[in-house]
Amino acid sequence: MKAFPEHLLADGRHHAGDARWQQWLFIIIFKTHTAAGKLFDVLLIIAILASVLTLMLSTVNQFNFRYATWFYYLEWGFTLLFTLEYMLRLACVKTRRTYARSFYGIVDLLAILPSYLELFIHGASYLLIIRIIRILRIFRILKLTRYVGEADALMEALHASRRKIMVFIYAVFILVVVCGSIMYLVEGEEHGFTSIPASVYWAVVTLTTVGYGDIAPQTPLGQAIASLVMIMGYGIIAVPTGIFAAELGQVMGQRRPAIKICPQCEITGHDADAIYCRVCGSNLNPPDTQ
Amino acid sequence: MKAFPEHLLADGRHHAGDARWQQWLFIIIFKTHTAAGKLFDVLLIIAILASVLTLMLSTVNQFNFRYATWFYYLEWGFTLLFTLEYMLRLACVKTRRTYARSFYGIVDLLAILPSYLELFIHGASYLLIIRIIRILRIFRILKLTRYVGEADALMEALHASRRKIMVFIYAVFILVVVCGSIMYLVEGEEHGFTSIPASVYWAVVTLTTVGYGDIAPQTPLGQAIASLVMIMGYGIIAVPTGIFAAELGQVMGQRRPAIKICPQCEITGHDADAIYCRVCGSNLNPPDTQ
Amino acid sequence: MKAFPEHLLADGRHHAGDARWQQWLFIIIFKTHTAAGKLFDVLLIIAILASVLTLMLSTVNQFNFRYATWFYYLEWGFTLLFTLEYMLRLACVKTRRTYARSFYGIVDLLAILPSYLELFIHGASYLLIIRIIRILRIFRILKLTRYVGEADALMEALHASRRKIMVFIYAVFILVVVCGSIMYLVEGEEHGFTSIPASVYWAVVTLTTVGYGDIAPQTPLGQAIASLVMIMGYGIIAVPTGIFAAELGQVMGQRRPAIKICPQCEITGHDADAIYCRVCGSNLNPPDTQ
Amino acid sequence: MKAFPEHLLADGRHHAGDARWQQWLFIIIFKTHTAAGKLFDVLLIIAILASVLTLMLSTVNQFNFRYATWFYYLEWGFTLLFTLEYMLRLACVKTRRTYARSFYGIVDLLAILPSYLELFIHGASYLLIIRIIRILRIFRILKLTRYVGEADALMEALHASRRKIMVFIYAVFILVVVCGSIMYLVEGEEHGFTSIPASVYWAVVTLTTVGYGDIAPQTPLGQAIASLVMIMGYGIIAVPTGIFAAELGQVMGQRRPAIKICPQCEITGHDADAIYCRVCGSNLNPPDTQ
Repeated sequence: MKAFPEHLLADGRHHAGDARWQQWLFIIIFKTHTAAGKLFDVLLIIAILASVLTLMLSTVNQFNFRYATWFYYLEWGFTLLFTLEYMLRLACVKTRRTYARSFYGIVDLLAILPSYLELFIHGASYLLIIRIIRILRIFRILKLTRYVGEADALMEALHASRRKIMVFIYAVFILVVVCGSIMYLVEGEEHGFTSIPASVYWAVVTLTTVGYGDIAPQTPLGQAIASLVMIMGYGIIAVPTGIFAAELGQVMGQRRPAIKICPQCEITGHDADAIYCRVCGSNLNPPDTQ
Repeated sequence: MKAFPEHLLADGRHHAGDARWQQWLFIIIFKTHTAAGKLFDVLLIIAILASVLTLMLSTVNQFNFRYATWFYYLEWGFTLLFTLEYMLRLACVKTRRTYARSFYGIVDLLAILPSYLELFIHGASYLLIIRIIRILRIFRILKLTRYVGEADALMEALHASRRKIMVFIYAVFILVVVCGSIMYLVEGEEHGFTSIPASVYWAVVTLTTVGYGDIAPQTPLGQAIASLVMIMGYGIIAVPTGIFAAELGQVMGQRRPAIKICPQCEITGHDADAIYCRVCGSNLNPPDTQ
Repeated sequence: MKAFPEHLLADGRHHAGDARWQQWLFIIIFKTHTAAGKLFDVLLIIAILASVLTLMLSTVNQFNFRYATWFYYLEWGFTLLFTLEYMLRLACVKTRRTYARSFYGIVDLLAILPSYLELFIHGASYLLIIRIIRILRIFRILKLTRYVGEADALMEALHASRRKIMVFIYAVFILVVVCGSIMYLVEGEEHGFTSIPASVYWAVVTLTTVGYGDIAPQTPLGQAIASLVMIMGYGIIAVPTGIFAAELGQVMGQRRPAIKICPQCEITGHDADAIYCRVCGSNLNPPDTQ
Repeated sequence: MKAFPEHLLADGRHHAGDARWQQWLFIIIFKTHTAAGKLFDVLLIIAILASVLTLMLSTVNQFNFRYATWFYYLEWGFTLLFTLEYMLRLACVKTRRTYARSFYGIVDLLAILPSYLELFIHGASYLLIIRIIRILRIFRILKLTRYVGEADALMEALHASRRKIMVFIYAVFILVVVCGSIMYLVEGEEHGFTSIPASVYWAVVTLTTVGYGDIAPQTPLGQAIASLVMIMGYGIIAVPTGIFAAELGQVMGQRRPAIKICPQCEITGHDADAIYCRVCGSNLNPPDTQ
């Protein structure tokens, strides 16, 4: 149980006073490492994906024309299913408030609310797309702890580089405002640069090398400036990549797997050329082991 | 023979009981390091490339209009040639089952089957494009072992980073579904965002900085959200690059030869041209070891 | 006061002979670490952003049609406000010439001049977009020194890699001129490649993977050459990223604190939690030093 | 003279038997580190740039319409100038054959030949664009040796990673052929995928994230496959960047500037924690220096 990341559960703590059926429900719904819990999670993820797929297909005209009622009943079916699941979750945890206020508790609620809102406000059902976030639970099946470890390494590197990335985004922000304004003056409204905000939009499209082509410079001077912006964008992409690669390299370097283990104090992570333990000072290679 | 990667041959082992012509065929077809084997492989790759080129050109209207019968006979010629080669391979290996079930054995079969299927099913001949995979054999000519080593380093780095990349792809997947849905609501069907799947397709085109421009936001709010998606995509590209660069750096670091070890103080990591230990100053190459 | 980056202030030195109101103004305007100074800076940045937003929105036809007079008065309001601020800055610093010639002094002046120029030259007011640069002051609020440190690391890495990047840009420059000229000959004017400069523009658009699609090759040969240019561009992007990542890695490596030095054998590079030397095993923290 | 890269000169060796005017010419034309030589190189680069610009502008219709005769005379003027320069170079070097066969010798010749060819073959003058390569000489002015060193580091990293990059390009090649063929079957000729070569061109445009939009999938299945290709392309770009960054990191690591210099044998490049010289074994920190 030690290796299991309890904090990911909405309410990891389980108390002695619960009824038998609560304990039984709790294990099925929250404990992924049991056979029943794994089956529940797999079924849940299938239901979530099916519900998102239903929502997406219901917006395609050629499908909605034929199967509109099907989609209607399917969506309400999923909503009732998820409502039942939400109530069962509330029922089997000890401290309901903790679960209801946790990240997953809120997402679980948001995943059913829009259907009921739709009864009053037309279009609210599109918010059901938030259900896609629920499949973050998929990591609980895929040998959770390993993926959480990897995600942690990525997060740590992103966290360590957040200031550098903010400086970078800030520079990009100033750059697109200035470049967009210059292009508005150079190209003008007759070539599609209808306003400064539209020109700034063009600058973002160009600097990020997306390049839709819905707005494109047509005067020689505009094309020359645009070429400069493109080459800048081409070079600037090196900055976040370099930042992240350097930070991740350091994070991974610190997490380097144990090379030598001290036979005395069992501390790991000694350098390859270490002879004495860096914590207790005892010989890492006792005569009898070599 | 030791350095030769026997496992790449369909059936590396060669037995004493074979007829002379089998041994002779086996050397020509499977042994790249002999003159005859190298010639066979070069001819084979030319035939494969010519066959793929024939198939590609036969789909170009202006060529097919004039040379349709030529293409027809050429394709059957290549098919009969590769069929003969496949039968010869089967004939000269000892354990036919091992070859037939190996990666190359299956590819070799798949490279001739579509032509015969075409007799029954119209359009099956397009599957012949699978022949392109056969030229993986090109590495056997280009000083194979070196390239296999390099490919191995790349594969090892990809393998080591597979979990991080899965976390990344998963995040991208959620991002495009959410962004696509938002844009469907913001832009609507009159601006080309005809359905949520189409909007998700737009989000993929934008986030990956491909930017066809067949669907492009036209409302100011849509353009503002699109700008955010672009800048996110521009920054997100840093993540897989950083992951791969950091992992490859570690793989390459581990493959670096452990250069010299001081016989006195057992410190490693001396430069290639070091003669004396950088810590204790004793001779790294004592007279009796050289 | 020691940690405060005095050099970022237009005139950091403050003299005893100043009047009380000058000292009071100086603290509010230039000293970010006081409550009054922080409030002033926050208000200033809001004013700058509002002024830039006004300028941007005034170019959007549908807004300008309705609110033209509003925009006119707002712009003059901001100009007068910033003029007043500029004069107050001049009034409270001791050596006016130093401030007026500093980076921020010049930017502050350029941020008000265009409005007055507009009275004589039509269109000069667009230069007001330069105000966006003024919000570089935002770093003074966001725990300045940390961000300046990060920006310094980025700048140092960019500075160290400037020659490599110049070699790279030079290679890109030659490449686009040669590729553009070849495409002009291959595709010709009837397919949109109207001149060599236009073809070079196409080459920049393609090599940087922007790809507007306003000019695109249509002949098979042109498409084949364009494919080569794209794959080159796809590979070339690796060069600046690699340069920057490697340089930033070194800069960050050098900034890592030199952790602990063994008092016995003088080996450095011990881990942060090391207590005993990894080479000679002696205590890294002798009793008399702690 | 020791630091000057003699090998970059067409004929570095200068012999005693030369006439005075030959020695004088040789110094002006080939010796960049003299004032006269620097002036000559600056004038030469201006002439080259002017000549390339003339050629580029002469293809722009609106300019050629007015200034056609000007462009004609300018081009012949530059050709005669460069012909004279080429003959002077031949005149002042001792061994003409060495210069004529060197890289710069061939480029210098190719930069004048097309003008004379134009007299016989129409359109040959476009080959004059090769003159752009002549400005590689610009590095001789910009403190040559430093830039050559940086270019060498880039080249070394590219050379070290050439096999990995070939494996990568090979994988991309197979990928675009297979993806292009699949899209030809899925989308078909009515949606712009007129043939397999055209579909492969589309696959290159998409995988490299260029995205012209001249050919774009229109069926839902085609868009789904295209999304996969885009995400693959987005991830694949990590591979060459990672390869190059890792190799450049190693090359730069080996070139690390001298930290410690041996007082005995003057060998540099000792590790930061080195106490004894790695070549001669003497103490790097003699008692009297510390």
